[in-house]
Amino acid sequence: MKGYNVALVGASGAVGLEIITLLEQWDFPLKSFKPLASKRSAGAKLSLMGQEYAILPTTHESFEGIDIAFFSAGSGVSKLFAPSAAKAGALVIDNTSFFRLEKDIPLVVPEVNAQDLKDCPKNIIANPNCSTIQMVQVLEPLHQAFGIERVCVSTYQAASGAGKRGIEELQAQIAGSQCSQVFPHPLALNVIPQIDVFMPSGYTKEEMKMVQETHKIMHADFPISATCVRVPVLRSHSESISIHFKQAIDAYQAQEVLKSAPNIVLLDDPSKNLYPMPINASHTDQTFVGRVRSDLFDSKILHLWCVADQLRVGAASNAVKIALEWIKNHR
Amino acid sequence: MKGYNVALVGASGAVGLEIITLLEQWDFPLKSFKPLASKRSAGAKLSLMGQEYAILPTTHESFEGIDIAFFSAGSGVSKLFAPSAAKAGALVIDNTSFFRLEKDIPLVVPEVNAQDLKDCPKNIIANPNCSTIQMVQVLEPLHQAFGIERVCVSTYQAASGAGKRGIEELQAQIAGSQCSQVFPHPLALNVIPQIDVFMPSGYTKEEMKMVQETHKIMHADFPISATCVRVPVLRSHSESISIHFKQAIDAYQAQEVLKSAPNIVLLDDPSKNLYPMPINASHTDQTFVGRVRSDLFDSKILHLWCVADQLRVGAASNAVKIALEWIKNHR
Repeated sequence: MKGYNVALVGASGAVGLEIITLLEQWDFPLKSFKPLASKRSAGAKLSLMGQEYAILPTTHESFEGIDIAFFSAGSGVSKLFAPSAAKAGALVIDNTSFFRLEKDIPLVVPEVNAQDLKDCPKNIIANPNCSTIQMVQVLEPLHQAFGIERVCVSTYQAASGAGKRGIEELQAQIAGSQCSQVFPHPLALNVIPQIDVFMPSGYTKEEMKMVQETHKIMHADFPISATCVRVPVLRSHSESISIHFKQAIDAYQAQEVLKSAPNIVLLDDPSKNLYPMPINASHTDQTFVGRVRSDLFDSKILHLWCVADQLRVGAASNAVKIALEWIKNHR
Repeated sequence: MKGYNVALVGASGAVGLEIITLLEQWDFPLKSFKPLASKRSAGAKLSLMGQEYAILPTTHESFEGIDIAFFSAGSGVSKLFAPSAAKAGALVIDNTSFFRLEKDIPLVVPEVNAQDLKDCPKNIIANPNCSTIQMVQVLEPLHQAFGIERVCVSTYQAASGAGKRGIEELQAQIAGSQCSQVFPHPLALNVIPQIDVFMPSGYTKEEMKMVQETHKIMHADFPISATCVRVPVLRSHSESISIHFKQAIDAYQAQEVLKSAPNIVLLDDPSKNLYPMPINASHTDQTFVGRVRSDLFDSKILHLWCVADQLRVGAASNAVKIALEWIKNHR
């Protein structure tokens, strides 16, 4: 298999470190690796596949000879450097929200819309929002099987969604710190019904992402409502999802569909108190689903609960899967 | 004003201690006070209105001469002793689930159905489930104004719902303990989509309570679906509620109704990151509502977020308010 020259912008961040872990664990066909970050983080060392690398500062010239460039250092950095990388001939896989809703930029969850990778005129592919990725992995097989009419989701999102600084702030607060700089309010022993900024609609940007990105990824336009809430958990997002279908469906049918759906693990046995939780989803690459049950009043409505590691399923794993899928098409 | 002889079963528990706080803060018309508990807790001292009391063991003879008996020591204790108290002539205000759905037992949230107190043939009044109380305080004024057709709720419930032992277990886990005896799984840095036991329907008992008790309190039968989730918070429950109305309504109309609704505090200013959270609801007796917003696709649907102190609004305050309401009718 051909080897690829890979750059990683944001190599010292929470998602960057997970991408490095996955390149190694999944035996990615690397020819060379170039970890990049801000000037502040440059010089730090990291190791990959037994080799040590020093993180370099990101410049417009960093991408000469690069085949694939992962970007995971915030929207501002992607805005500034991703076009240079794409122009230099690298395929950009961008983990920020900057390009996601742009025309001509595929927004991809490989288990759902890998085919969208084929039309990539700008050499930039966007990795969706974390809470959206795990949700569409659950919704897509159910939509294909039964036809979705409306979705209502309430999230329980981990500190990792705000990156390494978010994780560190929660840990510090649990240890007694009173400081809240990353989150708008203290998060330890609290829940905060705000993720990202508020839009004029009264919804947060995170809530709008779950609506708009889901539509783009699934090529669908069914109504979605989201309430996105930060909870004092380190690194897995949970979601309580209610789905109205076009037809009556029972929980068993849905469970059967989910059992054979890509990347889904059904953990659903109330008799054993078995259901997904952050403590069993963390550090894995699957989306776990449980509490699948029919509505008590309407046979067309189903409720379920899903959990996935935000840094992996919601970011790094999806980005590396996009790269592998692209390689499959271009080797 | 006449004084009342009051007994409190479960005086050493988390809710019991809040009832004692409220009797004092609200200057309850006490003639005498008799704190009761299990034999294990008997002998412990507590003070109320400047006087010291020793907790006595609960017996069938404990209720002679008592006018009002609060029960907050678990269903088993209420089952065993509440009938004796009622037979001895005391009005029983029971905080457990034991009598809640029984015919001839009023289930009361004074802001919603105080009139049900008038028909109390068994001398026992049930205090509803904590997550139900705060929800019906929000739903009732909206139902009166606009007519509710369906409710979908996902909860974020605090450790205090499992009493003093629940609070202590979460605190111990945060300090490093690996022990989970009260909750079915570790709660620190985790969320658990199970509260109380599972029913054959696939719903938990807590979820069924939110449906059945809401119907009984509101004298309504609109469909309700609940997903009840434990989060690592000490003492306030949060709820993400989606409401389908019979008519189109905008968020402003709903906010106006909620502003003048009994016991509701509207905390809803996204421009100032202002919304209810456990850290601002704890140790208060109001139900806080925010994030009121119209659905993006259906003008008959509204979403909102409410938070209330589980030990106060969800238990002690409601019980003491029932007593005060009853006194108003019987003085």
